[in-house]
Amino acid sequence: MTKNPMTLDELETPAAVVDVDRMHANLRRAAEYCRAHGLAWRPHAKTHKIPALAAEQVRAGAVGVTVATPREAEVMAPAVDDLLLAYPPVGRAKLDRLMALPARVRLTVGLDSREALRGLAEAARAAGRRVGVLVEFDAGMHRVGVQSPGDAVALAREAAELEMVDYRGVMLYPGHIRSRVAEQDAALRDLSATVRRVADALADAGVPPEVVSGGSTPTFWRSHEIGGLTEVRPGTNIFNDRTTAEIGACGWDEVAYSVLATVVSTSVPGQAVVDAGSKALSREELRAEGGGFGALLERPGVVVKGVSEEHGLLDLAGTDWRPRVGDRVRVVPNHVCVSVNLQERLWGIRGDELVAEWPVAGRGRGPL
Amino acid sequence: MTKNPMTLDELETPAAVVDVDRMHANLRRAAEYCRAHGLAWRPHAKTHKIPALAAEQVRAGAVGVTVATPREAEVMAPAVDDLLLAYPPVGRAKLDRLMALPARVRLTVGLDSREALRGLAEAARAAGRRVGVLVEFDAGMHRVGVQSPGDAVALAREAAELEMVDYRGVMLYPGHIRSRVAEQDAALRDLSATVRRVADALADAGVPPEVVSGGSTPTFWRSHEIGGLTEVRPGTNIFNDRTTAEIGACGWDEVAYSVLATVVSTSVPGQAVVDAGSKALSREELRAEGGGFGALLERPGVVVKGVSEEHGLLDLAGTDWRPRVGDRVRVVPNHVCVSVNLQERLWGIRGDELVAEWPVAGRGRGPL
Repeated sequence: MTKNPMTLDELETPAAVVDVDRMHANLRRAAEYCRAHGLAWRPHAKTHKIPALAAEQVRAGAVGVTVATPREAEVMAPAVDDLLLAYPPVGRAKLDRLMALPARVRLTVGLDSREALRGLAEAARAAGRRVGVLVEFDAGMHRVGVQSPGDAVALAREAAELEMVDYRGVMLYPGHIRSRVAEQDAALRDLSATVRRVADALADAGVPPEVVSGGSTPTFWRSHEIGGLTEVRPGTNIFNDRTTAEIGACGWDEVAYSVLATVVSTSVPGQAVVDAGSKALSREELRAEGGGFGALLERPGVVVKGVSEEHGLLDLAGTDWRPRVGDRVRVVPNHVCVSVNLQERLWGIRGDELVAEWPVAGRGRGPL
Repeated sequence: MTKNPMTLDELETPAAVVDVDRMHANLRRAAEYCRAHGLAWRPHAKTHKIPALAAEQVRAGAVGVTVATPREAEVMAPAVDDLLLAYPPVGRAKLDRLMALPARVRLTVGLDSREALRGLAEAARAAGRRVGVLVEFDAGMHRVGVQSPGDAVALAREAAELEMVDYRGVMLYPGHIRSRVAEQDAALRDLSATVRRVADALADAGVPPEVVSGGSTPTFWRSHEIGGLTEVRPGTNIFNDRTTAEIGACGWDEVAYSVLATVVSTSVPGQAVVDAGSKALSREELRAEGGGFGALLERPGVVVKGVSEEHGLLDLAGTDWRPRVGDRVRVVPNHVCVSVNLQERLWGIRGDELVAEWPVAGRGRGPL
């Protein structure tokens, strides 16, 4: 019904908007950091799920992008020639999708089991397509990943011997390091030691890793301290979010993403209700001080203290500001990746002007 | 890539599936309860967001459906003639969408402010379309709703006087009552007293409510104890979910919805990782005992103890069951509405056979 909106005011809310100048500045800073430290930059496209933004990342210096699902790989393939699927593709449907990617795409897959490796190798052989493999090891998050250098060696050796499979190295995800950037010293030292132990074991066993892929947004600016790393895969820092700002991995003025929302009720004293709830922001609590599910871009002290599906409850306890029904605000979610996944499209803005409309093409699972 | 899957085994995971026989039984039970107690049944379509399922609800005896957004109203309109938008439509874009609904649709809107009422009345006048209004009052949840019987009277009087607006009564949402069904006595007595106080004040003021709309899934089977209620709006109980079962508002064998998932990693001892994470289940913690983000349909003691975007961590501490990479399980999420909202489609199943494919048409905000 909204016909070609031209400005922020004309958008139906909730609507996800991206400050394109901030986004480009974020990309430039990340690229410069990686260049300065000799790290390959392979941003995770699950954050935006938009091929045009993956293309921007490559233009800014990324070696390729990371994806989490075969669907994301399909969506990014027209824009990017080099894809890392950082997730084991288990089952026929996922393998079929991967093998159907354009032949020009250099595909690498991260995995942590013989079953996943063998399934992938079989599909690659049947499709006549070479596939790179990174062995994922558990660097402390205890989510996935082989548990010892010995297990990494065993899986790497099997990968190195399989037809149509190119063993390329290892990957890790330091998702357990969520503390403030300034307080990561001990965790980074431990992580470095773990990475070196695995890399050394692989080298000693005759399967040295050409790639050691790691890095997250919380640890991004300290990736050069993680000994042995060759590649980093930050997702969030194309946009940043409330968590990234809270832990000191970006400034508040580097947050490029927010959800435009309308105040729909002020009946209950001490709060105002906006039309961005868990179906626009997601229900991810802040992993740092401050609590709640988001904060206002223009008034970061005003927190979304509660969400239900279509309601976000702004806490007015600490402010004299009293919004009225119909007023609009911009909410910065705690975690941008899950908020983007709830949107059909993102709007690129410069000031109040809409300068781009990007369908979030990589969300979902269905056929393209 | 999955071409016309015919059975559960052929589905790419994660995939949301609905046991159609259980769903129909759930609808029949709800309809019978409402008939027995003289309550109008107006199920909330935000749970499924699928017009074909709204049509099933009407066939089973619903007087119409409830929706949360103008988009849901647009999507449901071809299937249902009587819609309640239980949310104030603030702002031009939302009002335009509402006014463009087919003329045959009997539209009612719930709201709690003069601003929302006046905006709606103005749009109705401009469009030459009559709109019903329910005044929402806060029955204890403290999310939205006028705060006193006096405020309800003032807003009802204004609604009753506005051109093109039909004042129809009041609505409430008892979302604060989340306890086990057997433990709701005191809360229901309080709620009854509140409802009667508001209804009496309106009657005394010459604006008696023809409709008193309330009811949720947790309180559903006790709706007849809420004095004065004429209509109930349960959403979840078309499918049910882990929360509904945990609080005793359904049996585990009445849960019709689950997310089919594949085990992708068993590397970390004591857990198995499936490919249904927060982007398939959502990150809504259980409001009852048991914790976690979901449980297995076939093994309700096995809980999803953690989620990240594409990972669900099954806790194997309390079981001897040891799944292997490639095994498939069905996960019942804590809250079905937010899980459905993450899906592009639901699959209707009977046993292992796929008997229906329903796009989740009502999610999102964009133009139809």
